[in-house]
Amino acid sequence: MGTSGRRVGRPRAAQRPDSGLPAREELLAAAAEMFTERGYAATSTRAIAERAGMRQATMYHYFDGKEDLLAALLEGTVTPSLRLARGLLADDGPAPAEARLWQLCRSDVELLCGGPHNLGALYLLPEVRAEQFAGFHRVRAELKETYGQLLAATESCGALDKRELVLRTDLVFGLIESVILIHRSGPERPVPVFAAATADAALRVAGVREEDLAAAREAGRNLA
Amino acid sequence: MGTSGRRVGRPRAAQRPDSGLPAREELLAAAAEMFTERGYAATSTRAIAERAGMRQATMYHYFDGKEDLLAALLEGTVTPSLRLARGLLADDGPAPAEARLWQLCRSDVELLCGGPHNLGALYLLPEVRAEQFAGFHRVRAELKETYGQLLAATESCGALDKRELVLRTDLVFGLIESVILIHRSGPERPVPVFAAATADAALRVAGVREEDLAAAREAGRNLA
Repeated sequence: MGTSGRRVGRPRAAQRPDSGLPAREELLAAAAEMFTERGYAATSTRAIAERAGMRQATMYHYFDGKEDLLAALLEGTVTPSLRLARGLLADDGPAPAEARLWQLCRSDVELLCGGPHNLGALYLLPEVRAEQFAGFHRVRAELKETYGQLLAATESCGALDKRELVLRTDLVFGLIESVILIHRSGPERPVPVFAAATADAALRVAGVREEDLAAAREAGRNLA
Repeated sequence: MGTSGRRVGRPRAAQRPDSGLPAREELLAAAAEMFTERGYAATSTRAIAERAGMRQATMYHYFDGKEDLLAALLEGTVTPSLRLARGLLADDGPAPAEARLWQLCRSDVELLCGGPHNLGALYLLPEVRAEQFAGFHRVRAELKETYGQLLAATESCGALDKRELVLRTDLVFGLIESVILIHRSGPERPVPVFAAATADAALRVAGVREEDLAAAREAGRNLA
């Protein structure tokens, strides 16, 4: 729209209506759409550039290639949650660990299910095991660690031994990531209700008693 | 070994040591290995046939192509659980629904994590949405329905309204499927302990109280 002037004189292989996004974001949006709909292996950088309405050579100003685009998309599915998790851990307010964990779970589900594409599903790609994605794996491991720290601070998990706590963290983190699968098979589900119900379920897995759940949820909501 | 005689006179492009498996199973094993390690899109039927030590033309006696191999692998990740789930639903013994659900969850996790390849991960492939895989989606939907029936029969979920029960079923089924993700990031985890812990977590998500969990687990184990 207002931004089309910036490309005057450059022929565009435009297939995407001008979205007004900066070029980098436009490339990410095109890659997200094509990776999730056609598949990663079946998508070429040329097709992504075309979809974003620019030449392949222009794309290389922003990204080193297809792996680089995928890495940026993957990191975008965890970095905001890691930032929130660190804030919740550092916050010296009166909210108990159960409430912080609830809020982290709720926000994480909103992030994973909120966009127009099911980006979380990308990290199940066999390609993602490669070293190019070490940055993503590191950020994801840090996020999982903050889940573990919040869990360790809850009343119900405080008494668990280390091995049991690791297992519980795996299960809570797994439950949150499983929303990718659930969302994929039924994307019409209203996200806010689903995110709150998943956060409730995470507290149940942590061992929070049914009669304490409402208070944790209420205090968790206030941390938003 | 003892079976190599059946291929006398046929030149084999053998890359896989003769496993003694029937040809159909040998093809499935080769496809499982290559789809999960190289990726589905990056694997050709020719490469699968070679890995299984037979010609591409021979492969087509058993499977119509790559999609057909993938469909067979996918169905193998749900059919045994569906059989067990139906048995558990029909069983007129004294075990409560909580115990049956525990056993179903435990077995399902063992199935999903037990093989040499992480086959569950295959159904996150974008290709799996295609109509060729309708059979798999149907069996998976039936399995999920039996989870829902067992959940509806538990004391804690018996009072939920329909919308809440659907959500709870989504979450329990999601938790079970999430073991695919957990198993992928840490395949060294001992499966029996992990399967039992996941079944415990599923009962917690169902709302089973901490003090009732041990009895449900014990009765569930006896259903094995």
